[in-house]
Amino acid sequence: MEIDYSKIKVIGFDADDTLWVNETYYREAELEFAKLLAAYETANKIDQELFKKEMENLAMYGYGIKSFILSMVESAIEISNNTISNKAINKILNIVKTMINKPVELLDGVEEVLKSLSPKYRLIMATKGDLLDQERKLENSGLTKYFHHIEVLSDKKETNYAQLLKHLDINPSEFLMIGNSLKSDVLPLINIKANAIHVPYHTTWIHELVNENETNGKIYKTVNGLREILELLN
Amino acid sequence: MEIDYSKIKVIGFDADDTLWVNETYYREAELEFAKLLAAYETANKIDQELFKKEMENLAMYGYGIKSFILSMVESAIEISNNTISNKAINKILNIVKTMINKPVELLDGVEEVLKSLSPKYRLIMATKGDLLDQERKLENSGLTKYFHHIEVLSDKKETNYAQLLKHLDINPSEFLMIGNSLKSDVLPLINIKANAIHVPYHTTWIHELVNENETNGKIYKTVNGLREILELLN
Repeated sequence: MEIDYSKIKVIGFDADDTLWVNETYYREAELEFAKLLAAYETANKIDQELFKKEMENLAMYGYGIKSFILSMVESAIEISNNTISNKAINKILNIVKTMINKPVELLDGVEEVLKSLSPKYRLIMATKGDLLDQERKLENSGLTKYFHHIEVLSDKKETNYAQLLKHLDINPSEFLMIGNSLKSDVLPLINIKANAIHVPYHTTWIHELVNENETNGKIYKTVNGLREILELLN
Repeated sequence: MEIDYSKIKVIGFDADDTLWVNETYYREAELEFAKLLAAYETANKIDQELFKKEMENLAMYGYGIKSFILSMVESAIEISNNTISNKAINKILNIVKTMINKPVELLDGVEEVLKSLSPKYRLIMATKGDLLDQERKLENSGLTKYFHHIEVLSDKKETNYAQLLKHLDINPSEFLMIGNSLKSDVLPLINIKANAIHVPYHTTWIHELVNENETNGKIYKTVNGLREILELLN
């Protein structure tokens, strides 16, 4: 079964690593973090501990940059066995302030695609990061004019997307989601009978990885770059 | 000029201190924080420093509970002149984890009012806290069924409300906002020609206070409790 593009009314775009570079900056921040804690553990172990802490805190703090900082601070205290200096904690806080102030680097073809689609469809940005951080990135990206509005979701599971469709007052068949994460931008949509296009990015956060058995039998489209979408939707 | 209630289609409810108790928990957390730092400064000075830090961080971190923790950690490091112990920082992180797990205490009349209005109007919850935290509170409150959806705004200024109305595809005259903050829930609405009802709460965060000259000449309705709204809207 193919996606019936003629029914699509609203297109949701994931933001991080679909419209602009993001994961790269998180990886850089993790490297910095491991350097700060190099006296206590190997880089590999520090990475693992930080990820474990992020997963522990997910239900309480949710996704996004502030959760990332909080997990780094907690993790640093644990890894150092309560001996990390205040100055090092300040450096951790500053790693993230640097991330927040990074320029927004658009991925290839983004503006062309949005410009071409926005007169024909209602475009929304649907992301699960931090609201203020995502608004700031959208503003800095210069892409605001193409989007009807931003939807920041606390998670990207079936229930979150079902709520989003209710909120938009449309049927699942009228919604197409485009993003780089099979787990967050593709599979939950298929599971609620909406549509999805997968645009892989070269780096994927381990939390977003899926097993083969989760994708088997699921029908979605994969494109090699955002520009290919224009051939499908125009 | 009075509000023309016959035009109202969508009603936005602020959440914290309008639907449920919130500010009280923040005040308690600040007291705990001051106790932890009692060796370094007076409670009054600690309060001032924390508030200053929150204001400094507002543009970067936005509103909500995670921003509050981050400002507490930074402020503790500064107030202690880089000497606060890791254990004390952990205690600060735990103050907030306790806040997150507090039961939701509804204010008087809330359920009755929402139940009565939800068949006649599209009700939305419009708040500027942390998305996940607000979703959790709404879920725990048992009020989800009365709301069409939640809108978490990064701020509650004229532009944020103007975007919200665009997103809802309605005219300003069709929107009524109800909340406890003159600064965030009332004045910006009046300024964009929408409608607002003020329901004061006994405690107001200093950041939300307004001067007399900001309210002079502005037309809005003040009620003494949420139940009074039913007399106006039914």
